Amino acid sequence: MAQAPIPVLVNGAAGKMGREVVKAVAQAEDMTLLGAIDKSPEHMDKDAGELAGIEALEVPITDQFEPMLALASQERQQAVMVDFTHPSSIYNNIRSAIAYGVRPVVGTTGLSPEQIQDLAEFADKASTGCLIIPNFSIGMVLLQQAAIAASQHFDHVEIIELHHNQKADAPSGTAIQTAEMLAEMGKAFNPALVEETEKLPGARGGLAQEGIRIHSIRLPGLIAHQEVIFGAAGQVYTLRHDTSDRACYMPGVLLAIRKVLQLKSLVYGLEKIM
Amino acid sequence: MAQAPIPVLVNGAAGKMGREVVKAVAQAEDMTLLGAIDKSPEHMDKDAGELAGIEALEVPITDQFEPMLALASQERQQAVMVDFTHPSSIYNNIRSAIAYGVRPVVGTTGLSPEQIQDLAEFADKASTGCLIIPNFSIGMVLLQQAAIAASQHFDHVEIIELHHNQKADAPSGTAIQTAEMLAEMGKAFNPALVEETEKLPGARGGLAQEGIRIHSIRLPGLIAHQEVIFGAAGQVYTLRHDTSDRACYMPGVLLAIRKVLQLKSLVYGLEKIM
Amino acid sequence: MAQAPIPVLVNGAAGKMGREVVKAVAQAEDMTLLGAIDKSPEHMDKDAGELAGIEALEVPITDQFEPMLALASQERQQAVMVDFTHPSSIYNNIRSAIAYGVRPVVGTTGLSPEQIQDLAEFADKASTGCLIIPNFSIGMVLLQQAAIAASQHFDHVEIIELHHNQKADAPSGTAIQTAEMLAEMGKAFNPALVEETEKLPGARGGLAQEGIRIHSIRLPGLIAHQEVIFGAAGQVYTLRHDTSDRACYMPGVLLAIRKVLQLKSLVYGLEKIM
Amino acid sequence: MAQAPIPVLVNGAAGKMGREVVKAVAQAEDMTLLGAIDKSPEHMDKDAGELAGIEALEVPITDQFEPMLALASQERQQAVMVDFTHPSSIYNNIRSAIAYGVRPVVGTTGLSPEQIQDLAEFADKASTGCLIIPNFSIGMVLLQQAAIAASQHFDHVEIIELHHNQKADAPSGTAIQTAEMLAEMGKAFNPALVEETEKLPGARGGLAQEGIRIHSIRLPGLIAHQEVIFGAAGQVYTLRHDTSDRACYMPGVLLAIRKVLQLKSLVYGLEKIM
Repeated sequence: MAQAPIPVLVNGAAGKMGREVVKAVAQAEDMTLLGAIDKSPEHMDKDAGELAGIEALEVPITDQFEPMLALASQERQQAVMVDFTHPSSIYNNIRSAIAYGVRPVVGTTGLSPEQIQDLAEFADKASTGCLIIPNFSIGMVLLQQAAIAASQHFDHVEIIELHHNQKADAPSGTAIQTAEMLAEMGKAFNPALVEETEKLPGARGGLAQEGIRIHSIRLPGLIAHQEVIFGAAGQVYTLRHDTSDRACYMPGVLLAIRKVLQLKSLVYGLEKIM
Repeated sequence: MAQAPIPVLVNGAAGKMGREVVKAVAQAEDMTLLGAIDKSPEHMDKDAGELAGIEALEVPITDQFEPMLALASQERQQAVMVDFTHPSSIYNNIRSAIAYGVRPVVGTTGLSPEQIQDLAEFADKASTGCLIIPNFSIGMVLLQQAAIAASQHFDHVEIIELHHNQKADAPSGTAIQTAEMLAEMGKAFNPALVEETEKLPGARGGLAQEGIRIHSIRLPGLIAHQEVIFGAAGQVYTLRHDTSDRACYMPGVLLAIRKVLQLKSLVYGLEKIM
Repeated sequence: MAQAPIPVLVNGAAGKMGREVVKAVAQAEDMTLLGAIDKSPEHMDKDAGELAGIEALEVPITDQFEPMLALASQERQQAVMVDFTHPSSIYNNIRSAIAYGVRPVVGTTGLSPEQIQDLAEFADKASTGCLIIPNFSIGMVLLQQAAIAASQHFDHVEIIELHHNQKADAPSGTAIQTAEMLAEMGKAFNPALVEETEKLPGARGGLAQEGIRIHSIRLPGLIAHQEVIFGAAGQVYTLRHDTSDRACYMPGVLLAIRKVLQLKSLVYGLEKIM
Repeated sequence: MAQAPIPVLVNGAAGKMGREVVKAVAQAEDMTLLGAIDKSPEHMDKDAGELAGIEALEVPITDQFEPMLALASQERQQAVMVDFTHPSSIYNNIRSAIAYGVRPVVGTTGLSPEQIQDLAEFADKASTGCLIIPNFSIGMVLLQQAAIAASQHFDHVEIIELHHNQKADAPSGTAIQTAEMLAEMGKAFNPALVEETEKLPGARGGLAQEGIRIHSIRLPGLIAHQEVIFGAAGQVYTLRHDTSDRACYMPGVLLAIRKVLQLKSLVYGLEKIM
């Protein structure tokens, strides 16, 4: 007998990421879209599928969060709530979902360490899986894991990240995170052979931890790209990730929906379930 | 008390790789060059260091292989023989070294599976470590391991290898090996969305196992480069290794010299000791 | 006194390229959208701006082609028709536009050499500018011109084009066109140093004219990319163009609209007006 | 009747570039090595060919500069002096060569604008060609010319240069020169869309003229590489030059030797004769 499909609630279903999730869940054979929640009045009662640019799914956008959790809790198959809402609401959203026995998969960032700790205890007590995933890009996690492996054998590394020129911050959060992961290896990278002189201040990039330099390129036409370049005598080893569309996060979202059903506690980070 | 340096014999010390090994061993603080063996008459009795382009090491090139093994076997510290000679001689070289209790690190390729099996049994009986390493490039092994990790999450991959135009064979042995490693994952890559038409035969590259395509570029100015490109909706993940100098193999050679002392049997492949 | 804006008709205004043109013309300070023509019944009478994803422009989609030309011919300022319709209709569209004194800028491909010759004579007689532009990408034209300049000094070149895996043909038309442009230099590229052996048929790519090889990569996540790689002893010179959005064609379209007003005959190719 | 070969003197023939020139001249069918001058005592009287790593040329290294010029002036075919010596000596070398009717091709940098002006007048009076070439890389000149062409159509550009970690200065002189060439277009590049914030100072690179940013990567394994990246809505256009060996300068040197014979005055820069 075939497994019944996983019932999925999408919270924030009218947002950019929410629409992608609606589409991905609708197209996954082992899932069914149970509900589509969003607080923005302009999309109320629209069909979630049509809003996402696919066929009608007969699932209207609603702002009735708790009733949807109650509905989901009555499904015979364990239900999952995917949350791409707002930093200010996710703490309560997660607690409510767990209280109803619905398993949260949360992509919104902004929880404090204390909040995460508190939610972890709450999930533990309820023996309910809960996934908090700041970055759903499987490709970026693979790049970071490959970079960590390489850093055990290479002493020299620099990071280049390239983004469209509407991005205000430099370096990107992901580049900073990558440098932090490498820095945790506990070694000083890029021991200098010569005393460097910057004829233009900043030419050598921004200095992150442990001697790792990050260079940020901003140009229209670029989307979101990161390179980690390792060098040693006679060789260069480069890892590059290019993102061109939010669709790239969906394999990670679907993986998280499947995995959260097997968990009995809170887990943080996509790398933990890959 | 500091550890005594590891005594190293270099067999094939006048060849291109042999000279690099002489240089690397001479510069490694935990090793000492005990002997430099080569059969080519033109370099006989030259100083191995000077031949390698560094300072004189007071180690003359000799063709006396067995006497050098005998000498090495009398060292208090376990000795290692690094062999970059010829496919026709390595089988006997390895047996001789093990017979004298000298641990072989062999970079020459060309042993048959039967020969490797036979040598493995011989090493087992003698409880002597022996390393056979077809590719000493740590960067390439890292790339291949990262590719294997990525292939668990990506269904689409192509390989581009770029070499100087003096290379006759296409694709490169390393690119074929990379495709084989991916093919061993046991899944069919690159399921077709559309029926492809080649307006120029060969445009889509060479088809290796499991749907993996390899493209070989040959141009002067290139040295040795390999890219493995993974694609999925909205993202591309690229691994690239560039080799510009034989020096790139030396970290792998030094690692092998240190590791072979801890082994009691034959091990094949750099990835096993990284 | 400021110049009056250029009145522009967009033919095929409901198509993907047509919508981009509507948006670009609406946002160009020196142009005004006079009419938006399309034959598809489903978009009839919709506002062209809203259909293009911008504000309402009070220009409804109409299928009345000749009346719009008649209207445009009464403008005090010379009008331009941008045509992104169908190969089967452009010959007649161009003749009609010229007959009404409206200057055509045509992006649709598919005219035969005889048709182009015929239209050129027709434009000559009417002393009316007409632009036929098979590729509106300024970046690609720059790449091709840079490649032609490089081919005077480099004897070795290969082309790699990378596209999404929904593209059925390989190589891409643009890659073939680039090879043809280089081949017109009248020299044989890539004289062989060694006799090449393909261990996998097709590994060395598709052989275009004059020894130029083209390699076609197809992966999801890729969009449209082309590299031309020149090699010589000790150096490699690479030209790469990445397209991520139809917006990239708009600077070429706007340039063509401005330039066609200065012409008195038919001109073929964006490179002629850059 | 075949043209007699061009007699060439190499000044600085024992240096790294000088040896490459000796080799390139010896292998050029339309040239003959007339003399090899060098002041370093350690190579005196050695055969210039053997020192350059090729066959003996029966041309010994000599420090007799003026006698060699006198010899060259008696050749029936106009002679050329290629000078890769020292900034302190080139001014006098050039004057002496012109006085003897030998045409200078000078790769050494370091002349002041006044010295160049003075030499130009001296060459004019003697109606003698003279070439001063700060960068003999034809590939880099092609890249710079392609960048200038692109800058007429793109408003956004950044430069990345990547070198080995023995290079002390950042950015490289060639990257600064490229930025200067673009800045001479007389337009401000990279108008900001957003107010940028550097979370790590220097992340956005060094700011050269007219808004152009330069990023300098330093890693072992790299040699000498430069990328100029242009961006516009929906597209990126990248020019990249990779240098792996001094051999890359030889086509430029040979071109200069042939061209200087057709000149009657001083010309500065390889781009002037391409």
